[in-house]
Amino acid sequence: MINKLVEKIKKTQAPIVVGLDPSMKFVPEQIQKRAFAEYGETMKGAAEAIWQYNKAIVDAVYDLIPAVKPQIAMYEQFGVEGLAAFQKTVEYCRQKDLIVIGDVKRGDIGSTSEAYAAGHLGKVTVGNTVCRGFDEDFATVNPYLGSDGVKPFIKVCQEEKKGIFVLVKTSNPSSGEFQDRLTADDKESGKMRPLYEIVGEHVAEWGETCMGDSYSYVGAVVGATYPEQGRILRDIMPKAYILVPGYGAQGGKGADLVHFFNKDGLGAIVNSSRGIIAAYQQEQYAKYGAENFADASRAAVLAMKEDIDQALAARG
Amino acid sequence: MINKLVEKIKKTQAPIVVGLDPSMKFVPEQIQKRAFAEYGETMKGAAEAIWQYNKAIVDAVYDLIPAVKPQIAMYEQFGVEGLAAFQKTVEYCRQKDLIVIGDVKRGDIGSTSEAYAAGHLGKVTVGNTVCRGFDEDFATVNPYLGSDGVKPFIKVCQEEKKGIFVLVKTSNPSSGEFQDRLTADDKESGKMRPLYEIVGEHVAEWGETCMGDSYSYVGAVVGATYPEQGRILRDIMPKAYILVPGYGAQGGKGADLVHFFNKDGLGAIVNSSRGIIAAYQQEQYAKYGAENFADASRAAVLAMKEDIDQALAARG
Repeated sequence: MINKLVEKIKKTQAPIVVGLDPSMKFVPEQIQKRAFAEYGETMKGAAEAIWQYNKAIVDAVYDLIPAVKPQIAMYEQFGVEGLAAFQKTVEYCRQKDLIVIGDVKRGDIGSTSEAYAAGHLGKVTVGNTVCRGFDEDFATVNPYLGSDGVKPFIKVCQEEKKGIFVLVKTSNPSSGEFQDRLTADDKESGKMRPLYEIVGEHVAEWGETCMGDSYSYVGAVVGATYPEQGRILRDIMPKAYILVPGYGAQGGKGADLVHFFNKDGLGAIVNSSRGIIAAYQQEQYAKYGAENFADASRAAVLAMKEDIDQALAARG
Repeated sequence: MINKLVEKIKKTQAPIVVGLDPSMKFVPEQIQKRAFAEYGETMKGAAEAIWQYNKAIVDAVYDLIPAVKPQIAMYEQFGVEGLAAFQKTVEYCRQKDLIVIGDVKRGDIGSTSEAYAAGHLGKVTVGNTVCRGFDEDFATVNPYLGSDGVKPFIKVCQEEKKGIFVLVKTSNPSSGEFQDRLTADDKESGKMRPLYEIVGEHVAEWGETCMGDSYSYVGAVVGATYPEQGRILRDIMPKAYILVPGYGAQGGKGADLVHFFNKDGLGAIVNSSRGIIAAYQQEQYAKYGAENFADASRAAVLAMKEDIDQALAARG
């Protein structure tokens, strides 16, 4: 799947992933009304609204981009019905030949991580029948529990040719609270380095066991809001694809992104959620109106593509 | 809810939480057969099997214990149907007046953690209607993203009088990989301490904003497999209830647990999953047979209670 991701990025010339994080405040009123008319102001109504919203956006942008990243929390807040909308979204995007990165940030002790890996990337056996759960192509993974929380995901990646992105340096303001802590290095005694570098080294090591043609099935999450750390981590994990959140609404700019890419112009894929899916609510795209929200999303994808293109060209 | 937890622990005299982690290999054949006969070898069949298994165990032990801890991964592996069984389990346990700790280990950036907090502990507004998702009493939270990943949960805890347990030192073998790293202390320059101590201090600080009568709504997860760290963390977070996994199947023993409790005999609640729910598969309880698996679970709860009682009595 990492090979397919690289191939699709080359083909679309867009190292972009659209974050399908459908907060109800982004969903245009006409969609909400239709959904509530059918299912009432219920979890099922909410799930129908976010599904219809997602579908329209995917239909409008799928030819421009290699991948989408649904954030499962935005579905999970609507309970079981919301998670059914998550599943429907994953399936629909895969039918459109989009690569689906499940932003699930799971991670637990060994046997429990096995269950998460089976549910999101792999399969389970029920009696004698093999069944698949959410069946994303990639999942994001939290490393706080160490190797035995991550390795069950890697095992499934090897079996299924799927991938993970491990949280290394997240995009949020307080990510430094633990991730930036200077910690003792077990390689060169006495040297102190931030925790995210140590985690990055583990990502590189884990990734060696699971290589595609040029990049590993084990990638990393590093926020666009921390370009300097991105540069350092790019060097530490040369074979890891970096999933870069934080562009756009969270403050990351095109020029900040260049450090995340390798010299071959590959190695990073930049996420934008609100900036794309709620583009119609921004002044710049207000002319589209709520009726044509999906066209606004398409325009925002094209603008993001140009912003990144220009930044990479300026790097030379 | 922390007051209710303390009260129920006093009443049952059992600082015990039963982990409802229904792996299919624990579910007796007769239950699997009945479920598959009704729904086929499908996700729905698997979900029905784990629900019937849970229900029988809960019916057999609910009067002995204050709380249960369903591990959501074991349900999530069966997709949307599995999560419906999770929800049914949560509801049923709450009807039985058990406190439900959702072992979900969620954690993300601010707005996303808000959605998780709403889905698991709080509510969402759909149109003008307030709806509730999974509605557990407590949830476990991963701290890797720092304060702005945890605070949205605390906000919901304050509103709903619910609680969280933040992962501090987990029970798995590789938990030390990152959690034990010696890190620079920002309080006393030059002093180096393991990361889990720093996280523990944050838990204590977060907890001050959200106090029940004697303990905080913000608790911590510290593994029974690391008793020495438990002792240190007990001192660092005197007002935090400690959820202690790793007893039984993972190797933690009654004598290891005494450090997790305060002098008042409170402050810790010990989880056992396999050791209770799959007791009938152990030699010690084999006499019950697969038919009477729930009676074996009841016997295992009583034995665990005695083991902890003795250890606490020996401490004096």
